[in-house]
Amino acid sequence: MNQAAANLSDREALIDQLRSLFGERLTTSKSVLEQHGHGESWHPVQAPDAVCFPHSNEEVATIVKLCAESTTPVIAFGTGTSLEGQVQAVNGGISIDLTQMNQILEVNNEDMDCRVQAGVTRRQLNQYLHDSGLFFSIDPGANTSIGGMAATRASGTNAVRYGTMRENVLGLTVVTANGEIIKTGTRARKSAAGYDLTRLFVGSEGTLGVITEVCLRLHGLTEAISAAIVNFPDVRSAAEASIQTIQMGIPIARIEIVDRAYMKAINAYSKTDYPELDTLFLEFHGTCAGVAEQVQMFDEISQEFGASGFQWADKEEDRRQLWRARHDAYYAGLAVYPGYQGYVTDVCVPISRLADCITETQADIATSGLFAPVIGHVGDGNFHSTMFLEPGNEAMFAKALELDKRMVRRAQQMGGTCTGEHGIGIGKLKHMRNEHGDGAMVAMQAIKVALDPQNIMNPGKVVDC
Amino acid sequence: MNQAAANLSDREALIDQLRSLFGERLTTSKSVLEQHGHGESWHPVQAPDAVCFPHSNEEVATIVKLCAESTTPVIAFGTGTSLEGQVQAVNGGISIDLTQMNQILEVNNEDMDCRVQAGVTRRQLNQYLHDSGLFFSIDPGANTSIGGMAATRASGTNAVRYGTMRENVLGLTVVTANGEIIKTGTRARKSAAGYDLTRLFVGSEGTLGVITEVCLRLHGLTEAISAAIVNFPDVRSAAEASIQTIQMGIPIARIEIVDRAYMKAINAYSKTDYPELDTLFLEFHGTCAGVAEQVQMFDEISQEFGASGFQWADKEEDRRQLWRARHDAYYAGLAVYPGYQGYVTDVCVPISRLADCITETQADIATSGLFAPVIGHVGDGNFHSTMFLEPGNEAMFAKALELDKRMVRRAQQMGGTCTGEHGIGIGKLKHMRNEHGDGAMVAMQAIKVALDPQNIMNPGKVVDC
Repeated sequence: MNQAAANLSDREALIDQLRSLFGERLTTSKSVLEQHGHGESWHPVQAPDAVCFPHSNEEVATIVKLCAESTTPVIAFGTGTSLEGQVQAVNGGISIDLTQMNQILEVNNEDMDCRVQAGVTRRQLNQYLHDSGLFFSIDPGANTSIGGMAATRASGTNAVRYGTMRENVLGLTVVTANGEIIKTGTRARKSAAGYDLTRLFVGSEGTLGVITEVCLRLHGLTEAISAAIVNFPDVRSAAEASIQTIQMGIPIARIEIVDRAYMKAINAYSKTDYPELDTLFLEFHGTCAGVAEQVQMFDEISQEFGASGFQWADKEEDRRQLWRARHDAYYAGLAVYPGYQGYVTDVCVPISRLADCITETQADIATSGLFAPVIGHVGDGNFHSTMFLEPGNEAMFAKALELDKRMVRRAQQMGGTCTGEHGIGIGKLKHMRNEHGDGAMVAMQAIKVALDPQNIMNPGKVVDC
Repeated sequence: MNQAAANLSDREALIDQLRSLFGERLTTSKSVLEQHGHGESWHPVQAPDAVCFPHSNEEVATIVKLCAESTTPVIAFGTGTSLEGQVQAVNGGISIDLTQMNQILEVNNEDMDCRVQAGVTRRQLNQYLHDSGLFFSIDPGANTSIGGMAATRASGTNAVRYGTMRENVLGLTVVTANGEIIKTGTRARKSAAGYDLTRLFVGSEGTLGVITEVCLRLHGLTEAISAAIVNFPDVRSAAEASIQTIQMGIPIARIEIVDRAYMKAINAYSKTDYPELDTLFLEFHGTCAGVAEQVQMFDEISQEFGASGFQWADKEEDRRQLWRARHDAYYAGLAVYPGYQGYVTDVCVPISRLADCITETQADIATSGLFAPVIGHVGDGNFHSTMFLEPGNEAMFAKALELDKRMVRRAQQMGGTCTGEHGIGIGKLKHMRNEHGDGAMVAMQAIKVALDPQNIMNPGKVVDC
């Protein structure tokens, strides 16, 4: 029996063993395997050998222990909404689907924190918190799982005021590569007690362990919330107004750019009739007087940059409609050319370079001839140009890959990063060395080997370059 | 020649080699060695074999490379103000004194960030920033070096609004255990590109590498700043008022408790005449209207808890005097019993448990008979009881060690940590396993071995338990 055959037979034995433990919560159904072999990106499907649906930390530990015995890859799976091929089973293995670990374990109103299982989604948590006066602030477009958001160091539209998952995760429960259940962090707001394992696992994309529980900071709903859209003559003006807003220290909760191409797509998809101009979506949180003051300060700034057509949404229902339209932008883009795939870029630069970075990128896009509208969390210096591509059109894909590479190099040269919030997966591996340098890559790889010596935790991702 | 003699001879050869490279910037003068063998705590002096004063990243790399060749310990040294024996040379070795690396390398006003060498002190940086409209927010009591603050994950009085070093370090330059110079992080405000090496080195107390440069977030000075002290009938009332202030979401910049024992010591030391009652020191930052609103909200809360005797300080000079008195509390305590040593505790708990934790601790102190006044960053749930002890009085020290242990266990049982901001060093090693559990300790130790396989980087600290 050769090595490959031996491995195959080991893996079959493992699956039999898991089936005997998990019964119907272990599946090898082709459609389920396929569904677990991709996120929402263009990366080709790479299916696992089986999918397991645990209900507890202990069950996850059991799966990982058995996988470790047969050196089988373990891929944690949440809602399957990642954008860089994070869940692709590049060497097969067992996909651990955490969606049935969806209990909200505790909410501590007085401390404004909570503990949830990894499969809880952000909307589920916020529905649960309804009427508590508290909310969970991180909101990537999709209704993602909290575990997946921690693993990818997600952020979204509120990060400019409330921070990303880096700032909002207080602690984790993690199953390590040898099947141990460990806890990181405490419920104290700060600590100087040893290495910051919490921040190490946040953003590690399942390559160092499986996150099974997350302790989160929550934030108090403010007395007043006011949302608006406002139009600008061009993207540079909108970006410049954003930069000045941040530099003035206005504690704006959301400040999002949507270019005219995306506004047109949104109107078509969401049946809205917003002006099809370069637009900022805004939200102000605070006391009544505080919000009024912020609005006045922003208004003065925006006038300097030629703003027009403020449309306000103060009622919760109106605000929800406005932000739903913003969050559906990706799907609106997909609907412009039915059947096309989205290839989302995600650079983030120091805010002083944002206007240059966006306008140079837009000129580059125009030259390329691709449909690639721009949207972004401009308060953080982070924006996405999504290239919509015809499947199988290799020339188009080649053009997109080149355009992406130039965008990333431009951002890195400006002191920025190849990814503000989507992570590395397999899609951005090629940019890691240029961003971090050889020495830092050696350190990351040493950490990977130390915590996962058999390379079974989501292999082929993040540091495999 | 036996092993010890061989090591000694190796070390002498190393020192000769360093002297040939660094000349007078390498010293073995007894008084300098002694001075580099301790911080500001009660832990006994453990002097290094030599002290070296590099001027550049490359010089630090040279020292570390030579130390690695002879398996000699390397201890990074800033201002020598650590409180848990972080700089003690437990196995001798080379102390790298970074105070001559004190250049402010760049300030990017538009991005509100800067890059400094590790030896720059916080006051030096803020003096440099004077008139720029920006400030660096972290302020432990002493005039510490930025490198030391990063290494210890320091915080101070402003952390409740502006965060700790965890949130304010954007990136680092680090010399690793093999003498490589690596950079972590970018100048972008957020990134999802791989493992968060920045957060791993922040708080690692020199055990994973020597921090030589720090890229920091700065904050904008607000239009209005208003400081005050206010008295409460007891510590519980002051703590309860603080808790409610945080829970109401008032963006208070500083909220510090000082008990009546400390107030008396401060008056004597700083020649002030504050009421000798349990007191909160406060500071509000914002627009003029915003500060007025915060003050009004705080005033209403504080009345509920029996506050009296507000004394306001709005002018910069008056505020400085007020905060200088607060920051000098430790030295004021030392002056009560001349010749005594301070033994500072540093627990941090979820804010809902703060009033219980402080009052139970005070009862415990009263029973012990020790002089151990309480001061704290109550907005973060962090407080210090400093036990002032007679050198050589073993019975008193034994009592202090037991009291400390009970304080830590109490905080840990409340979901808190043994150290909010002072770090582990050698003093808190004994609390690590109880706080993190065996599994997390295994992970931390694996990281230590991965990044420092010879155990030359500040050995005996943080994870050596």
